[in-house]
Amino acid sequence: MKSVCQKPMNPSSSELRRHNLVKPPPVGVLKMSTTTTKTSTTSSFEEFEATKKLRVLAQQPFDLTTSGNLTAERITKSTTEGAGWRYNYGCQRIDENVLTALEELAIEAGLLDKMKAMQSGEVMNFYNGYDSENRAVLHTAMRDFFDSPNTGKEASAATELARTELNKLKAWGEELDNSGQYTDIVFVGIGGSNLGPRTTFHALEAYKRPDRNVHFVSNVDPDDATWSLRNLDPRKTVVVVVSKSGGTLETATNEEFFRKWYESEGVDPSNHFVAVTGKGSPMDNPSNYWRSFYIWDYVGGRFSTTSTVGGTLLTFAFGFDVWWDFLRGCSAMDKHALTPSVRNNIPLLNALIGIWNHNFLNLPTCAIVPYSKVLWRFSAHIQQVDMESNGKCVNSSGQPLTSPSGPIVWGEPGTDAQHSFFQLIHQSTDVVPVEFIGCKSSQFDNDIEYKGTTSQEKLLANMFAQSIALATGQQDENPAKVFPGNRPSSTFLTEKITPYTFGALFACYEHKVAFQGWTWGINSFDQEGVQLGKVLATRILEFVTAERNGTDGTTDTFPLGEAFWAQLKTL
Amino acid sequence: MKSVCQKPMNPSSSELRRHNLVKPPPVGVLKMSTTTTKTSTTSSFEEFEATKKLRVLAQQPFDLTTSGNLTAERITKSTTEGAGWRYNYGCQRIDENVLTALEELAIEAGLLDKMKAMQSGEVMNFYNGYDSENRAVLHTAMRDFFDSPNTGKEASAATELARTELNKLKAWGEELDNSGQYTDIVFVGIGGSNLGPRTTFHALEAYKRPDRNVHFVSNVDPDDATWSLRNLDPRKTVVVVVSKSGGTLETATNEEFFRKWYESEGVDPSNHFVAVTGKGSPMDNPSNYWRSFYIWDYVGGRFSTTSTVGGTLLTFAFGFDVWWDFLRGCSAMDKHALTPSVRNNIPLLNALIGIWNHNFLNLPTCAIVPYSKVLWRFSAHIQQVDMESNGKCVNSSGQPLTSPSGPIVWGEPGTDAQHSFFQLIHQSTDVVPVEFIGCKSSQFDNDIEYKGTTSQEKLLANMFAQSIALATGQQDENPAKVFPGNRPSSTFLTEKITPYTFGALFACYEHKVAFQGWTWGINSFDQEGVQLGKVLATRILEFVTAERNGTDGTTDTFPLGEAFWAQLKTL
Repeated sequence: MKSVCQKPMNPSSSELRRHNLVKPPPVGVLKMSTTTTKTSTTSSFEEFEATKKLRVLAQQPFDLTTSGNLTAERITKSTTEGAGWRYNYGCQRIDENVLTALEELAIEAGLLDKMKAMQSGEVMNFYNGYDSENRAVLHTAMRDFFDSPNTGKEASAATELARTELNKLKAWGEELDNSGQYTDIVFVGIGGSNLGPRTTFHALEAYKRPDRNVHFVSNVDPDDATWSLRNLDPRKTVVVVVSKSGGTLETATNEEFFRKWYESEGVDPSNHFVAVTGKGSPMDNPSNYWRSFYIWDYVGGRFSTTSTVGGTLLTFAFGFDVWWDFLRGCSAMDKHALTPSVRNNIPLLNALIGIWNHNFLNLPTCAIVPYSKVLWRFSAHIQQVDMESNGKCVNSSGQPLTSPSGPIVWGEPGTDAQHSFFQLIHQSTDVVPVEFIGCKSSQFDNDIEYKGTTSQEKLLANMFAQSIALATGQQDENPAKVFPGNRPSSTFLTEKITPYTFGALFACYEHKVAFQGWTWGINSFDQEGVQLGKVLATRILEFVTAERNGTDGTTDTFPLGEAFWAQLKTL
Repeated sequence: MKSVCQKPMNPSSSELRRHNLVKPPPVGVLKMSTTTTKTSTTSSFEEFEATKKLRVLAQQPFDLTTSGNLTAERITKSTTEGAGWRYNYGCQRIDENVLTALEELAIEAGLLDKMKAMQSGEVMNFYNGYDSENRAVLHTAMRDFFDSPNTGKEASAATELARTELNKLKAWGEELDNSGQYTDIVFVGIGGSNLGPRTTFHALEAYKRPDRNVHFVSNVDPDDATWSLRNLDPRKTVVVVVSKSGGTLETATNEEFFRKWYESEGVDPSNHFVAVTGKGSPMDNPSNYWRSFYIWDYVGGRFSTTSTVGGTLLTFAFGFDVWWDFLRGCSAMDKHALTPSVRNNIPLLNALIGIWNHNFLNLPTCAIVPYSKVLWRFSAHIQQVDMESNGKCVNSSGQPLTSPSGPIVWGEPGTDAQHSFFQLIHQSTDVVPVEFIGCKSSQFDNDIEYKGTTSQEKLLANMFAQSIALATGQQDENPAKVFPGNRPSSTFLTEKITPYTFGALFACYEHKVAFQGWTWGINSFDQEGVQLGKVLATRILEFVTAERNGTDGTTDTFPLGEAFWAQLKTL
């Protein structure tokens, strides 16, 4: 079998070779599976006419450092709005020709139709011709309670199921209030069951109920769970365990950690453990859990914050009204993402500009830099949403990609970042496109004037200055003081980080990622790449258990794993 | 003047153009400065014989997926030790020829001599022929109190000054203990005055005194300072303000925020505000500060954790003994970094392997993934140390680099990361080299056995499994389940994260960055790239102030800044 993955960024051999641990797979032509019902609608990214145009345009991209190119008028004009946000792309290396070609790319790739299809509940998570999850992708249905609800059969059915869970959630919230017993929540989940809810919690912590405290446990590292026990009283605590399958290693282990803690403290765990899981999973068991809230296969982990996954945590911490406003903001962006005009559709435009930077200007990463301390985990959440969705090397027909898929996404808040990695962004040999996020007002509305300006003004002035400095650069006689410039950035602006605006921003990036995935022709909704590590970890643990129990000989050998494990013994 | 910066990763125009905001600089041949005393010892990276050899070797790099290449024996053999750590490079794409060429590169670039020179106090922060900071680089002298102290005149003088401050710090710590008044510290500083101390605090939080609480304020965002006020009593609080120059915008603003808070609470700020600053700076003023601790120009911000910058915070939080052990660990790694044998010198070997991945295998980023939750901010700290040091585009003779300088450094802890961005690392079109960090024992020693193994064993099994999975990959009939493999990683192992081992790890990365910078011939110790943004932010703030005060006309216009600012008004 020939290579199915090419590595265009890597000049070294791109040929795939069987790894030497598992049985060789049957060699032969890739077979069509009979289980897939969906036919492909995917053309290859490189075959689009627009792609060819953009390749030509990329040979002489718009130069932000050319006198007269980056003007005040351009900044004023290069803007669009929706769902409480303004998006400014004046400091991107695009001109009218590129914008037009990107619009054509959106049409050729059928991006708006795909967004409509996704929101209506069509099967979007599939590989054409191969076994796959073969599912709808319906995180938007989890919040479709507001304007212009989707009328698709699958979508509206999913929304009704979500509404049932929301009502259960609301009733549970009232029960918690009435009991007055619970002050703390321990939220046990990993990946999508951690980063999104956690990021949202921090973004909106100003709205937290003063009588409620929140603790997260995600990592299988026992120090993570131990640390959360500080000042915790099991009688006053709710432990929410989140796992769709009911079998995530880290989550099951940490649940056991807390169950043992309840036992050691002599507290009955009834009325303390809550499950968020799929119907019929091993965790869907009323004898083990006070309450069970459901999630569904058509809501992927990294897209699950607006389901009961985030709902349990955030209604506990903030109350139902804040949660509802957050959903309202997400939903507003879902509707905005259907805007047919590319230039007026923020997530679509941002997606296309990202593709311009990544696939045509060959910039391998993308930095997300919010100028708001409350968004300090936002980049980590989007890092997951983006990289777990679009870090693939085959398209949804199983063909190898010949152009890079999703970028490496990273970032930290500004102004902190200015004193950290911005040196590289300004003066390195490598260019990093930046997405700035800023708000007119602070969240707590507690500010001082110092040397004639408020802190919030200083914050925003710095954000705008960075964007301009990256674009224009600066010449100097001293080479160490030269800024090459011509480094692209976009800016998101809103009035203030509220549940509504944060929800809209949150959904905006979910849709950016989906639009980009469809452009590259990949399936953004599975994560097969996490499986091999799990399998090999299990093999190492089998070896460790066998060694401990003296049952050597019954376990398959795993020389590489054993060699690594042996490194521990001589430390 | 011709371009001084080339952008080898970016196919677009590399020509520098003057940005349209400032006066054109005088055009002409680059002039020699008369103020520089240091002569260049820098050869060009591309001219080294070893570089040429490595370019040839990179055409057919060692293939980890070839049967018989990655063996248990290789893993066992590819290891070296020092200062409490073991470094394993068995899963890197290097063979004996590459290792030999990397050793030759180290010799040609004079890396060990430069490390010796740095630790002895020679001027290492300079540009040959241009105005520059022209300073020694002596963070190692801040902790040279243990074995084999450096006998260099500048180094030992710096160590004696540091000892004086340490004695002041110890005395202050005893005074705090005796008074019993202080329960909380607010640590005001940004960049190097925040990330290193903060990362260290979290890494060692298990050692925190139960009677002491810690709060960090870095960002000029007023929400950052406001948030830190929760549950804070000014009478019981110490506010430490860190700024070498005494004029960092964010820090000065946040100091003012806290002074106003003391005023509004009616509490005398005497015996509450502590300065960490350069001798003679505006902050070196006993009438404003209870105590002043000194730092020096030869300790850069990102390298300042082991000076009084970290010392004030960490002795308050942990007590002096923990601080002393942390310094001992750093110093042990400083001595280890002088090990002449490349293969037995961890930071040097890690630096060279990083260069192999970055400059020869063309991998633009480097992920640092600690399998320890207490190291959850370690990647953010190293991101700063590395990217602010080596994100440059000229060498220390002011010549443009023709090969990429420092990588983009990023990461989050495992196993969390496995459920986030590892999808991309395993299956993307792009390849990301990973540096894993693991420890045999957890920090709190509070673990459970579940399904036959402890959580710590599960954690380590996952880390080793990821390294193996990345290296070997896996073939499959279903293209979505194929893992290309041949993706490089290294693994750091220690017994446990203690003050000593954490100190050694901390210093190990400082030295990696220095070794890499010298190899590329760049000055890793300045940060000119942060200046332009500051200048432009000031211009925007002048405009904002003028507009507020109705003094338009006296301020220079700044159309780009004004256009951005206008975007706020219509939100």
